[in-house]
Amino acid sequence: MPESIPADSVGLVSPSTLHIDDPLKLDCGRVLPHYDLVYETYGELNAEHSNAVLICHALSGDHHAAGFHTMEDRKPGWWDTAIGPGKAIDTNRFFVVSVNNLGGCKGSTGPNTINPETGELYGPDFPIVTVSDWVRSQAMLADKLQITQWAAVIGGSLGGMQALQWAISLPERVRHTVVIAAAPKLSAQNIAFNEVARTAIKSDPDFHDGYYMAQNTLPRQGLGLARMLGHITYLSDEAMGEKFGRELRSGAIQFGYDVEFQIESYLRYQSTSFVERFDANTYLLMTKALDYFDPAKEFDDDLTATVANIKAKSLIISFTSDWRFSPVRSREIVNAMLAAGKSVSYAEIEAHQGHDAFLMPIPRYLEIFASYMQQVANEGENR
Amino acid sequence: MPESIPADSVGLVSPSTLHIDDPLKLDCGRVLPHYDLVYETYGELNAEHSNAVLICHALSGDHHAAGFHTMEDRKPGWWDTAIGPGKAIDTNRFFVVSVNNLGGCKGSTGPNTINPETGELYGPDFPIVTVSDWVRSQAMLADKLQITQWAAVIGGSLGGMQALQWAISLPERVRHTVVIAAAPKLSAQNIAFNEVARTAIKSDPDFHDGYYMAQNTLPRQGLGLARMLGHITYLSDEAMGEKFGRELRSGAIQFGYDVEFQIESYLRYQSTSFVERFDANTYLLMTKALDYFDPAKEFDDDLTATVANIKAKSLIISFTSDWRFSPVRSREIVNAMLAAGKSVSYAEIEAHQGHDAFLMPIPRYLEIFASYMQQVANEGENR
Repeated sequence: MPESIPADSVGLVSPSTLHIDDPLKLDCGRVLPHYDLVYETYGELNAEHSNAVLICHALSGDHHAAGFHTMEDRKPGWWDTAIGPGKAIDTNRFFVVSVNNLGGCKGSTGPNTINPETGELYGPDFPIVTVSDWVRSQAMLADKLQITQWAAVIGGSLGGMQALQWAISLPERVRHTVVIAAAPKLSAQNIAFNEVARTAIKSDPDFHDGYYMAQNTLPRQGLGLARMLGHITYLSDEAMGEKFGRELRSGAIQFGYDVEFQIESYLRYQSTSFVERFDANTYLLMTKALDYFDPAKEFDDDLTATVANIKAKSLIISFTSDWRFSPVRSREIVNAMLAAGKSVSYAEIEAHQGHDAFLMPIPRYLEIFASYMQQVANEGENR
Repeated sequence: MPESIPADSVGLVSPSTLHIDDPLKLDCGRVLPHYDLVYETYGELNAEHSNAVLICHALSGDHHAAGFHTMEDRKPGWWDTAIGPGKAIDTNRFFVVSVNNLGGCKGSTGPNTINPETGELYGPDFPIVTVSDWVRSQAMLADKLQITQWAAVIGGSLGGMQALQWAISLPERVRHTVVIAAAPKLSAQNIAFNEVARTAIKSDPDFHDGYYMAQNTLPRQGLGLARMLGHITYLSDEAMGEKFGRELRSGAIQFGYDVEFQIESYLRYQSTSFVERFDANTYLLMTKALDYFDPAKEFDDDLTATVANIKAKSLIISFTSDWRFSPVRSREIVNAMLAAGKSVSYAEIEAHQGHDAFLMPIPRYLEIFASYMQQVANEGENR
């Protein structure tokens, strides 16, 4: 828990819920007759409504991106390194909106909310949503908040894909996109890791075809395995080596199958803490949203054509040791934007933390990010 | 099945079993009172017994490295690309010995053989064996075959670690080592992948703490997951992309959780075929042998000191796209050998196939390998 709220924190925050009664037609063909979106805001919307930025979350993220819900919170929101007064996304200048995506498990309509057609939890019957579906639902939130155009849509990893999709789908509504540690689509290896995670969850006997809540249980082993595996892909080999090396928990080799190395202990801890706070059906659908993301598919796999209608300026950031979405993948986006004559800045940050680097307080990364966002803010004020 | 035996094949082969009655003291402190080693040989041992080479297998390998057991075999032994008349390991010149390691599941004493103390299968009570244990047991086989000194000990991946350990533990008995796609020890990331695989196996309800045979079942899901995950680490991102890309099995996205992408289908197939031919307890102990391998541990983590007593000349080979044991890890071995004044050759092969490259017919790799082995053979004949 914070003894006191740090000066560069947004402080105590609380989520809001927007109930949307307009039906949402999803890419899968199904329609959500109505839905809730849970979101947080930090900073103040200016009179012109020109200083709003949207934060899009990644696979296991949610709307709580910055600040604390209570003085008892052990940790702030997931992107507190980047959001706050004087930080890269400066809440003295921006009105920051952060939303829990549809299909999530932190309050927005998803597998753990009631299906109005049955009066029961959606569970596995919740439709698979796509990045485009999220953009459409987030646009409904923007409408409600009277934000005609975002100063910036920003995200890392799957969040970066949403930022890119915003610029493609609704070019008039985005002045800037910041796409961090992302890719224009998943590689076969990326999909393969997701499939192992899904197989682990689905083969857990406590999964019950997704109806585990009705059985009053959770697929702890399967979701835990998925999380362990995820963690390996979020960290670099180097970062793991620095953090854990080959250290043994008890000093000597045990010649048994219990946890022996520190890295095993860490993964076990990550796994058991995750299963208590995250929903397995949500995990499944988030991995599918990742697998399906491929905006160039509608443009004959031509990424340059895909970004041709973008009006937003872009900042693309990658990290050298990220092997989940390596710099090569970010450069694909950059090259397409350059080929299409778009305004794009690109920063490849020397960092050993792997994919997770986008959440870390890496000075050069946050300096470049802050510098770009200051331009965005200045532009907004000079409009 | 081969319609006819190719001219460069060792042809039809059959395994032999050596029963060893001398107790083997293992690194874990336990003693195997007696044990069997199943092995195959290809080529002829010369009068001087100077042309024998030992092939060491990797995690899921066995003694059947080359040729066919029957005319109905769909595929030859696992290293048929490298072993045969006129091949890199030329059976016209070498007497090749390939052994199923202790703890294996293809006939050598291991979890699926009878524990003489109980009259039941060893199952999970089979001791965890180390790379050093394997070297000691393989030395017993060498004694039996009257091979005082191997012309070469050769292996890829975990097999390469055995080759390296042979040169360290029994320097008088090895003239050459060929260490391919290996590492001097596992990284934290390598251990992490192994731990996810072990957790998958152990958490399968059909695992029954390892006594699944007694329950007349197999931990298919867990072992299958382990294999899926293993496969991802054996292939490069690039190789997976070339082979599978983002191709869908049925052309269109299904918006469901069944297998959709070709890569998913491939992993599923690899997984289901593997569980019928490999034992879960063996898989567990093989991963532990990998995790524990760290010959420098006894030398204050000084790899140069570790290799100081080696008498063998060495060829070290790595592959550019191998991210399981990358070229950097092979170079650690090379650098230590150079620092210790040893005779070492090193080839870093441009290859996109990832870790599995060591099993593939890559011309430059096999040329360099063959050229080295010809020198080994010439040396043996001139002794």
